[in-house]
Amino acid sequence: MPKYVPFQPLSLPDRTWPNQTIRHAPVWCSVDLRDGNQALINPMGPAKKMELFKTLLRIGFKEIEVGFPAASETDFSFLRELIEQQLIPDDVTIQVLTQARPQLIERTFEAIAGAKNAIVHLYNSTSTLQRRVVFRADKAEITKLAVDGATRIHELASQVSDGRVRYQYSPESFTGTEIDFSVEICDAVCNVWQPTIENKTIINLPSTVELATPNVYADQIELFCRLFKFRDRAIISLHTHNDRGTGVAASELALLAGADRVEGTLFGNGERTGNLDIVTMALNLTTQGIDSGLDFSNIKEVRRVAEFCTELKVHERTPYAGDLVFTAFSGSHQDAIKKGYDAMKESGQEQFEVPYLTIDPADIGRQYDPIIRVNSQSGKGGVAYLVENELGFRLPRRLQVAFSQVVQQATDSTGQEMPAREVGKKFLETYVSPPAELVYRSHKPLECDLEDQEMFQFSIEYQGVAHEVVGQGNGPLDALVHALTEKFGLAYDIQDYQEHAMEAGSGSSAAAYILLKTPEGTELYGVGQHRSLTKASILGLVAAINRCLGLSRDATSKR
Amino acid sequence: MPKYVPFQPLSLPDRTWPNQTIRHAPVWCSVDLRDGNQALINPMGPAKKMELFKTLLRIGFKEIEVGFPAASETDFSFLRELIEQQLIPDDVTIQVLTQARPQLIERTFEAIAGAKNAIVHLYNSTSTLQRRVVFRADKAEITKLAVDGATRIHELASQVSDGRVRYQYSPESFTGTEIDFSVEICDAVCNVWQPTIENKTIINLPSTVELATPNVYADQIELFCRLFKFRDRAIISLHTHNDRGTGVAASELALLAGADRVEGTLFGNGERTGNLDIVTMALNLTTQGIDSGLDFSNIKEVRRVAEFCTELKVHERTPYAGDLVFTAFSGSHQDAIKKGYDAMKESGQEQFEVPYLTIDPADIGRQYDPIIRVNSQSGKGGVAYLVENELGFRLPRRLQVAFSQVVQQATDSTGQEMPAREVGKKFLETYVSPPAELVYRSHKPLECDLEDQEMFQFSIEYQGVAHEVVGQGNGPLDALVHALTEKFGLAYDIQDYQEHAMEAGSGSSAAAYILLKTPEGTELYGVGQHRSLTKASILGLVAAINRCLGLSRDATSKR
Repeated sequence: MPKYVPFQPLSLPDRTWPNQTIRHAPVWCSVDLRDGNQALINPMGPAKKMELFKTLLRIGFKEIEVGFPAASETDFSFLRELIEQQLIPDDVTIQVLTQARPQLIERTFEAIAGAKNAIVHLYNSTSTLQRRVVFRADKAEITKLAVDGATRIHELASQVSDGRVRYQYSPESFTGTEIDFSVEICDAVCNVWQPTIENKTIINLPSTVELATPNVYADQIELFCRLFKFRDRAIISLHTHNDRGTGVAASELALLAGADRVEGTLFGNGERTGNLDIVTMALNLTTQGIDSGLDFSNIKEVRRVAEFCTELKVHERTPYAGDLVFTAFSGSHQDAIKKGYDAMKESGQEQFEVPYLTIDPADIGRQYDPIIRVNSQSGKGGVAYLVENELGFRLPRRLQVAFSQVVQQATDSTGQEMPAREVGKKFLETYVSPPAELVYRSHKPLECDLEDQEMFQFSIEYQGVAHEVVGQGNGPLDALVHALTEKFGLAYDIQDYQEHAMEAGSGSSAAAYILLKTPEGTELYGVGQHRSLTKASILGLVAAINRCLGLSRDATSKR
Repeated sequence: MPKYVPFQPLSLPDRTWPNQTIRHAPVWCSVDLRDGNQALINPMGPAKKMELFKTLLRIGFKEIEVGFPAASETDFSFLRELIEQQLIPDDVTIQVLTQARPQLIERTFEAIAGAKNAIVHLYNSTSTLQRRVVFRADKAEITKLAVDGATRIHELASQVSDGRVRYQYSPESFTGTEIDFSVEICDAVCNVWQPTIENKTIINLPSTVELATPNVYADQIELFCRLFKFRDRAIISLHTHNDRGTGVAASELALLAGADRVEGTLFGNGERTGNLDIVTMALNLTTQGIDSGLDFSNIKEVRRVAEFCTELKVHERTPYAGDLVFTAFSGSHQDAIKKGYDAMKESGQEQFEVPYLTIDPADIGRQYDPIIRVNSQSGKGGVAYLVENELGFRLPRRLQVAFSQVVQQATDSTGQEMPAREVGKKFLETYVSPPAELVYRSHKPLECDLEDQEMFQFSIEYQGVAHEVVGQGNGPLDALVHALTEKFGLAYDIQDYQEHAMEAGSGSSAAAYILLKTPEGTELYGVGQHRSLTKASILGLVAAINRCLGLSRDATSKR
C-alpha cells in the first residue's frame, strides 16, 4: 500500500458548471469571528472582537458567524454583549455554531436569547475517515446524531418568540463524504426542519479539508444539488479551506455549479491554511462588472483592522491588498501601464483597461502614484513615469531611453532599488543642473535687419569670468550657439528641441529639452525649466552645453 | 459604458479536461531568478543568486530560467559566472528570456556562450489591449516581430557548436489574446524553428494577467492544443500569475487540459501577486501518490533560503510551508487528529489517513509534536496530546476532560495561548504535586492472615507531624485509605484507578491515576509517577488526597 492514495473523484460527464459564468454576487457570510478566531495564536479578546465586528458591518456583511458560544465563555459573553447592548443592526443576522449535543445546543440558545435574527448552525462530521477513526460509528448513528441535534434545535427555536431563528446544517468534512450519504443526511435534517420556499434552510457543504483539484469540488456541489430533495427550499452554502492553495478557485467553481452563498474571512484567515478569502472573491467580481455588495473602497483600513485583530500580516503579494500588487518593477510592464493610462486619458473612455492591472487601484483606496519603483530591471517607461510624476517633466522618448540607462547604471552598481525621490534628484542633477562651466545671466534682443534672423546679446559667465557675447540666428538658441562658437570655439549642434507647458494655465512653467551633438558625435540632452519659454530653452541649452563640456573634461582628465 | 466589462470566455462545450485527473508530474521550470527576482524590492545580488541557484539544483529542478541578460548587467554577469565556473550540472538546462529585438537577442547569445544546455526564451505581447495601446500595431506587425526574432535566434543558434540551444516562445498576455491569433503566431514561430518530435519547441502560454476563473484558462489551453498545428512537436508550458488568487488552480486545471510543463517559483514569489507556487503544486501531487520529482523533504531549509533571497516572508497560512498549517487549535480537530494517528498506529497501516492533515508533516521535515497549541478553544484531545508528548502521561478520558477545563479556565482568563511547556507545568502542579498536607515517606508490608487482604505500615507526615499508620485492605491503596480514615477521619473513596508503564522496558517508570470522591461528592484525580508501580499508586493517591484536603481548606477559608 503506498503512503498516499489519490482522491477518487466522482464521475459527472454531463456536468454543466464549466459552461457557466458568475453573474451576481453570492450571499456572503463572514466567519472571521469564529473559524478565523479559533485558529489564532492569540485569540481575540472582547475589544478586538468588537472592532472586527464593527468593521464587518461597515463592509456590508449581513450574515456574520460570531462564535461557538457553547464551547467558549469568551464567545458566549461577546454574544450577550452584542445582543444586550443592541449592537446588531436589524438587517444583520448573527450566526452561531454548535455541535449536535443537547447541552451544547441549549447553551447556544441561551447565548442568542433576545437576538432579532439568528442562524443556529449545526454540524457534525460525516466523512468516511472521521466515521471510522474518530466516531467509530456507522452512517445510521451519524445520521441519528444530526437528526437528534436538528430536533432539539427545532424544539428550542419554536419556543423563541422575540426573534427569528433560521437553521443551518453542515455535514462537516463534506469533501471526504460520499455524495449519496451527504444527500441522505441533509435530507434527514431537512425532514426535521421542514424548510419552505419562503423560509429556506441553509445547507453548508464545506471543503473542510481540500482534498482534490477545485473542479472536483464543483462536481460534488453540482451532483449534490441534483440529488438533494430539498434543493428548492435550501440555500446551498460553501465553506472552503485552502489546503491545496485553491480555496478561492474551489468557491468560484462551486458557485458556477449552483451554490448560493459563501462563508469566508477577510484575507483568508482561518484554521490551518485558512478559509476562502472574501476580499479576493469580492474584488474578482468587481473586475467583472458585478456589484459585490461589499465595500472595500478603503482596503487599507480593512487590512489595518484585520492585521490588528488577528496579529497576522497580509502578505505582500495577496491579491488587491498586498503591498506589492500594484507595483510594476519590469521596464516593459511599466511602459505598458503608462501607455494604458495615457490611452484611457486620450480617448476619455470610462472602461478601465490598463495592461497588468485588473482593477483601478483608486477604486479600493490605493494609488498608482508610488507604484513604479526603479531597480536595475526597470525600463524607460517606469523611469519616465516617475519623473513626470515627481517633477512634471514629460520626457521625449530618446531622453527616456537615455535617462533609464543612467538609472540602470546606478541601480546595477548598488543592487538596490532607487526610490522615486532619488530618481527625481538624479534627473535634476543630470539634466537640469549639471556641473556648470557656463552660466547664463540674462539676454536682450538687439536690432537685426536680416530676414528671419534675430540678434541677441547674452550676459554669461564662462569658466568663472563674466562675458557679454552677441550672436544671431533663427531664434535665441541658434543665436547663443553661434555666439559661443565664435567667442570660445564651442562647436555643438542642436539635434532636437522640444518644449511643453508644465501645468495648465498661462502662468505655468515651461520645460525645454535640448539635444546637442558634440564634434565627436556624442548626443547629450539638457533640460531647462522657467516661467519664460525663451529662458527655459536657453537654460536647457546651457545645461546641455555644460554636459558636453563635462564630457570633454572627463576625457581630458583620463588621458 | 460601465467601468469594468466582464471577460468573455470562449465557448467549448465539448471540453474534456474536467474528466481528467493529474497522473504524473509536469516538467518543472523555476523562474525564481527571473520573474521572481525582477519583482523584488531589493533584487538579489550575485551571492543571493548563487545561493538560490544551488538550492534550486538541490530541490531537483532541471530547467531554471536564470535571467534576462540583455536587460540587466547583473543577470549577464551571473550567467557568465555560472558558465565559466562550470556550476551548471550536465542534466540541467538554463533558460534566458529575451524580447524580439535583434541587439537584445545577440546580447542574449553572448550571455549563454559556452553553456552545454540552454533554452532561449523569446516573447512578445499579443493581447488585444497591448496591441492597441502599447504597440499600436496590427496582428501582422506583431507576428512579424515574433517571426523576425525567431529567425534571428535560429540563425545565432545554428552557429553554436559547443552546446545545445533549445527554443521557447511565449505569446505574452496569452489570456488576453484571441485563441486564433495565439495559434497563428505560434504556428508562424514554429514555421521558422521547425521543431521535430525529437527536438520539440516549448510553447509557453502565460496567464500573464489572470483575467477570469481558472476553468476559463483550462478551456483556452485545451482549445489551443486542438488548433495548434505543431502540437505533437511542442511542449505546452504554463506560466500563471495570481491576480485573482487562483494561480495554482489555473495551472492545475490547465494540466488537465493537456499542458506538459509549468513555470513557477518557490512559494509563489513573482511579479505583482506572484507566480504559480511550485512548492504547493508539487506537494499537492505528493498527497495524491504522484512522485513530483522535486525534493521538499526539508521544507524549512528551502523556506529559509527563499526568505533570505527574496526578503519576503512565507505567510503563516501558506500551504505546507506556513508556520500555522500543521497547527490545530480547535478541540474537535485536535481530538480527531489524535484519533487518526492512534488508528494508524493500532492498525499498522502505511497509508497516511489523519483527519485535517493532507500530508504527513514528517515527510517535509516538519513535526507534529509542537503542532497542538492550547488556547481557550482547545479541547481535551489537544491538551491530552500535549501532556503525553511533554511528560509521557496517557490520561484517562475523564482526566482529559477535567484537565482541559483547568486549561480553558487559565486561557479564558488571560486570553492568551498556553505554550506546551506551560501546559505540562500546569498538569504537574495540579495533579502530581499539589500543595501537600499529607506526605508519603515509605511503607512496609506486615503479616496478614486474612484471605485476599494485605496489611501495611506507612511512614507519613500529616500537617507537619510524622506518623506511622497501619491499615489493611485488598492492596496498598485500600490499606492506606483505611489507615487514614481510621487515624485522621479522612473519608475519601477510590472511584477509579488506572496505571501504565511510561516507556518500554522493565526499568521504566509507571504512572498511576487515582480518582477520589469526597464525602460531598466531588471527584478529584491525583497522579503519581515512580519506578515502583506500588509507589506510583501510593503517590497518586496521596496527591488526590491532598487535592481533596485543599478543596475543603478552600471551602473553609471562604466561609
